[in-house]
Amino acid sequence: MSKPFGKPDRIVVALGGNALGDNPAEQIERVNNAAHALIGLIEQGNEIIITHGNGPQVGMIQNAFAAAHEADQAIPAMDLPECGAMSQGYIGYHLQQGIGREMHRRYKSWHVATVVTQVECDPDDPAFANPTKPIGPFYTEEQAKALMEENPEMTFVEDSGRGWRRVVASPEPKKIVEASSILNLLDNEFIVIACGGGGIPVVREYDYKPNKGRYKGVAAVIDKDMAGELLAENCDADVLFLLTAVEHVAINFGKPDQQDLTELSADEAERLADEGQFGKGSMEPKVRAAIKFARSKSKKERVCIIGSLDKAAETMAGLSGTRIYA
Amino acid sequence: MSKPFGKPDRIVVALGGNALGDNPAEQIERVNNAAHALIGLIEQGNEIIITHGNGPQVGMIQNAFAAAHEADQAIPAMDLPECGAMSQGYIGYHLQQGIGREMHRRYKSWHVATVVTQVECDPDDPAFANPTKPIGPFYTEEQAKALMEENPEMTFVEDSGRGWRRVVASPEPKKIVEASSILNLLDNEFIVIACGGGGIPVVREYDYKPNKGRYKGVAAVIDKDMAGELLAENCDADVLFLLTAVEHVAINFGKPDQQDLTELSADEAERLADEGQFGKGSMEPKVRAAIKFARSKSKKERVCIIGSLDKAAETMAGLSGTRIYA
Repeated sequence: MSKPFGKPDRIVVALGGNALGDNPAEQIERVNNAAHALIGLIEQGNEIIITHGNGPQVGMIQNAFAAAHEADQAIPAMDLPECGAMSQGYIGYHLQQGIGREMHRRYKSWHVATVVTQVECDPDDPAFANPTKPIGPFYTEEQAKALMEENPEMTFVEDSGRGWRRVVASPEPKKIVEASSILNLLDNEFIVIACGGGGIPVVREYDYKPNKGRYKGVAAVIDKDMAGELLAENCDADVLFLLTAVEHVAINFGKPDQQDLTELSADEAERLADEGQFGKGSMEPKVRAAIKFARSKSKKERVCIIGSLDKAAETMAGLSGTRIYA
Repeated sequence: MSKPFGKPDRIVVALGGNALGDNPAEQIERVNNAAHALIGLIEQGNEIIITHGNGPQVGMIQNAFAAAHEADQAIPAMDLPECGAMSQGYIGYHLQQGIGREMHRRYKSWHVATVVTQVECDPDDPAFANPTKPIGPFYTEEQAKALMEENPEMTFVEDSGRGWRRVVASPEPKKIVEASSILNLLDNEFIVIACGGGGIPVVREYDYKPNKGRYKGVAAVIDKDMAGELLAENCDADVLFLLTAVEHVAINFGKPDQQDLTELSADEAERLADEGQFGKGSMEPKVRAAIKFARSKSKKERVCIIGSLDKAAETMAGLSGTRIYA
């Protein structure tokens, strides 16, 4: 399984936030397991860049600030971009530690760095007109309406009988603001952790100079697989590796005639996605990111692999997972 | 005030956490002001590395999690290293944004990156036997005693009649774990933000291999000026620039015969510090860090400057502040 000759493959690996656990102790344990799998990829002779989701973690931070602010107004309310920035520090710290430990164990000398990453999106993205991504704690109808009165920019909706919840936009990522920092570390043989939680979403404000806007945080959630795809294009990666809880992309998932897919073209994948074969909030965004990456322009052939974290090295070696190519 | 010829001075600038405000809106405003002052240093022809305190910010995060955990046990308790990591993301994000904005305004193309930084300390540091640094919320005696029963590794003490508070050690920084990431970015002309809050304190555990320990977070607070000093040595900086609210180090501070100092040798500074001339938790640690840096070995002459954020560029030009040299 080693690849001793030639240029190493550059792989952007996207870990799911759900794979990271719900509290610090759980996160340390899960990250240590993930580190084992990730270092397996390095032992195969690849370069890796790590990105990760932050759903449960940013939710925890938001809920903590919301509950604390309600109990004690001296503790400030904390909006989504700041909570996202906190989650990048929190998750990156544990990943650095877990990967560093695994490195030491295997006598490897690569360094690990977390780059706090902003991702620019377009303020005219249609997603902003139709916020759909639920975030933060549940509220009663009265609380939600009071919050909307107080904060006219916020939208709350009733969430399947469980209460009211804030929803935000999920715009497309346009640019990784810290791309050059990431590339620079990468070119110097660092394992880089970046774009955590899809990045801190920012938009440009053009308040004093043409073409020289400044960034401003915006309450939104960028899909971490789409941000990972952009990261992979920015890094000119060979492989975008989307890790999930299942080994394969499947059609007729969960039905008696479920069929696991081992490889498919971007066109086939698109046809199946358009048919609604893949779970809306789970597998479909991964397949869409895969299609985009497989079709992206490069001198190299680009492939996206969707597979399970536990079998990361086997999947890279072609023994598991689903490959999507142009 | 420009320095067009020769190699630029490399300056580690340490911002106080108090200078960053108590909530996100305040922090954005303060950071924008700080960015203006910091970019002034770059316009003088210097390279800068930024470090910052996090006292109010990490306190806010700790208090939020403590209050939320008390109100709802589903929100996990969050210990100091994780809160510190969150504060690095939170502050780094705003600093990146503020500095980036100021760069754009002045048509400069430098990039800014925040590196999530762990700082190693010695588990045998005598500070661990005598924790003195108060952190987190106030508790009643009963609450504090119950918490100590539950968490035998925690120490709570009565804090000047205001209630009981947890105290942690303030050990010396021994090693910046992410030093190579920082240096790498720095050598490629990035403005690096690192060692926020003195770094996330970690110790080595030697659980499976000699000389190959892994890092583990430890509840402690490393003084940000001492961490900045170590950072400045690691980067072979010419100048350690400790920013504070006053323009000068003074003797007989606040008395009728107060005398501002414009320059002094490390030996003089040490004599005055030993006399107790400087505020215990405020100016003294700055002067001690200054002495250490001025005496540190290098081919270059090293100087530490203590001065006010508002006059950063004037201070670098020698028009304000206190210089401490070997």
